[in-house]
Amino acid sequence: MSVSITVHATDGAARAGTLHTPHGAVPTPCFMAVATLGGLKGVTVQQAEELGQGVVLGNTYHLALRPGAERVHELGGLHAFCGWRGPMLTDSGGYQVFSLAAQRKISDEGVWFRSHLDGTPFNLTPEESIRIQRLLGADIIMAFDECPPSDAPRAEVERACQRTAAWLERSVAAWRADGLPRGAAVQALYGIVQGGLERDLRERSAADLLRHDLPGNAIGGLAVGESFADRNRVLDWVAPLLPAARPRYLMGVGTPLDLVEAVARGIDQFDCVLPTRMGRHGIAYTDHGPLRIKRAEFAADPRPLDDTPSQAARVSRAYIHHLLKTGEHLGGQLLSLHNLAYYRRLMARMRAAIRAGRFAAFREGFNASFKDDLRPDEAPRDG
Amino acid sequence: MSVSITVHATDGAARAGTLHTPHGAVPTPCFMAVATLGGLKGVTVQQAEELGQGVVLGNTYHLALRPGAERVHELGGLHAFCGWRGPMLTDSGGYQVFSLAAQRKISDEGVWFRSHLDGTPFNLTPEESIRIQRLLGADIIMAFDECPPSDAPRAEVERACQRTAAWLERSVAAWRADGLPRGAAVQALYGIVQGGLERDLRERSAADLLRHDLPGNAIGGLAVGESFADRNRVLDWVAPLLPAARPRYLMGVGTPLDLVEAVARGIDQFDCVLPTRMGRHGIAYTDHGPLRIKRAEFAADPRPLDDTPSQAARVSRAYIHHLLKTGEHLGGQLLSLHNLAYYRRLMARMRAAIRAGRFAAFREGFNASFKDDLRPDEAPRDG
Repeated sequence: MSVSITVHATDGAARAGTLHTPHGAVPTPCFMAVATLGGLKGVTVQQAEELGQGVVLGNTYHLALRPGAERVHELGGLHAFCGWRGPMLTDSGGYQVFSLAAQRKISDEGVWFRSHLDGTPFNLTPEESIRIQRLLGADIIMAFDECPPSDAPRAEVERACQRTAAWLERSVAAWRADGLPRGAAVQALYGIVQGGLERDLRERSAADLLRHDLPGNAIGGLAVGESFADRNRVLDWVAPLLPAARPRYLMGVGTPLDLVEAVARGIDQFDCVLPTRMGRHGIAYTDHGPLRIKRAEFAADPRPLDDTPSQAARVSRAYIHHLLKTGEHLGGQLLSLHNLAYYRRLMARMRAAIRAGRFAAFREGFNASFKDDLRPDEAPRDG
Repeated sequence: MSVSITVHATDGAARAGTLHTPHGAVPTPCFMAVATLGGLKGVTVQQAEELGQGVVLGNTYHLALRPGAERVHELGGLHAFCGWRGPMLTDSGGYQVFSLAAQRKISDEGVWFRSHLDGTPFNLTPEESIRIQRLLGADIIMAFDECPPSDAPRAEVERACQRTAAWLERSVAAWRADGLPRGAAVQALYGIVQGGLERDLRERSAADLLRHDLPGNAIGGLAVGESFADRNRVLDWVAPLLPAARPRYLMGVGTPLDLVEAVARGIDQFDCVLPTRMGRHGIAYTDHGPLRIKRAEFAADPRPLDDTPSQAARVSRAYIHHLLKTGEHLGGQLLSLHNLAYYRRLMARMRAAIRAGRFAAFREGFNASFKDDLRPDEAPRDG
């Protein structure tokens, strides 16, 4: 397989390994940074390399709308387009269609929707999602699924699970089909477990997925509004069902606490917009929790954010406070660099703890020190 | 003296040398990048180092308003504040008071004005400007001058020259006074020639300045709306009057064509917001002139901007076009990096041409190839 995992050490359910891809190997558990439109927000690929970023993720929905998958393909694929030389992953577009698109109609065939930007109509089906992801050319591509909202009634979640299973069949068939554009043959397809907060639906969805023995398995439908406890309960059910010989990817999660809890349950891959989105909104992650650097208490604070090595480490909290208060984008850029570096280092510390057989102590210490009191409205989605 | 120039080669009036400062030596002619509020817009100090930036300039007016000179001083001075380890220069604040401040009153004592941000009243005098610049602690500081608008009547320009001369006396006295805060003793003071487009006033202002034999001499009051021809005519008059043993600094200039013409007339130092401001507005400098990367012609252009080495060199014009069109700040950041690198390389090419005795040919070739058709409204001042 073009993408595979080698597990070097386990500690309880937590595992430290290596994810092998056509664009290089990455130590796991790994955090994948989100390049929504093909660029990390405020961070160049050279800066991402310098801070040791492993995998970068592009959003199929956003890239299909602008500049269009054909355009990216003509320009050499997503790697050449954005200049990133390491592993890349694209999502299926499903999540954004359900969370962003205006005026959508879901049928068994797929989703008809209008662009949230200008109303242009699109059809997204499993076949079309795979076709777009082939044109983009990432190392890892995702099956097209239906992700219902967190407060959806059970009947809706169940129907979404059935569609996800049917669409997985079609995604796999499209992925296996001949006539691949350049580079597409080596792409690895991951499927996705849905099922909301319903244990039996999650188990059924996992069983539907595992019949395909795909290169990787993902858990979707979390970080969509459910509680921390609910999220971890779903992981308690689902993670043990996913085969140890394949990478396990938890989609769209999460905060540092979320990552520690999910690693404890055996997850290998994560993606989330939080490091860059929070950075743009003036928030720095530290082991003690998020710091709101715009607050007056930081105006004369000569200390660096913490001891995370990044391009932000050379300046003080007071300097970044000043940049944020004066509307200089450089402030958000420095915090984004810091937060990506913080996440990268958190994963490295978890890997070291797993290999040393002291992950439980690390998890306990981290849970005791990290105080996350951010409210969702402090960092609204801003593109 | 703490700041001095060694001239290694001349070619006509053009000269290639080294500017020595307490924070390192920089080859001249050199372009100084503008960190208005203590940060290059969209560019980290590490990125500036990587692209070979020589000197960074901070704006006294902006820093005095936010976060305040005392705050910067408490945090270790401007170098420690922004993390820049190379040479720095601060202006006197005069230019911004005249161009930005709301409700100002000029008297022989100094300038009373209200902040353009919130109306807070300030008094800026030669003594106060030097005091602020001592607190900021740059290697090179500037005398407080009066810069009249380009269309000011001769009587107003003459009065501004007289004030500039009187304020220079007081700036020099304040600079020489005892009781310096930490680090301030090694700061070098440059004086400024004013006089608008009037030859006799320029000559008189230069004579007033040269009586002080300061570490460096600057030409102000240009790039304020006058024509390219007028600007070069003033340089024809003034540059030869400034002693060859001291660095000559042309303030606030300019476009690549401006720089080539000013180097031809013996200028050693420049500063201008154009590389970063134009970058934010989607414009890339090349030897053929500025490219408006937002234009549709670049949407599918697979070429890099040009052959300038920078973090933008790994991606295509089409990618940067996409980032600009989708409102991603990364587009402007990449163009800012490119433009700063382009300016740095232009200076290096001029130095090499001077040392090889072929500057006239370089200048002729550059003037023939570089087509500058930008209108001022294409890149308005945006903070």
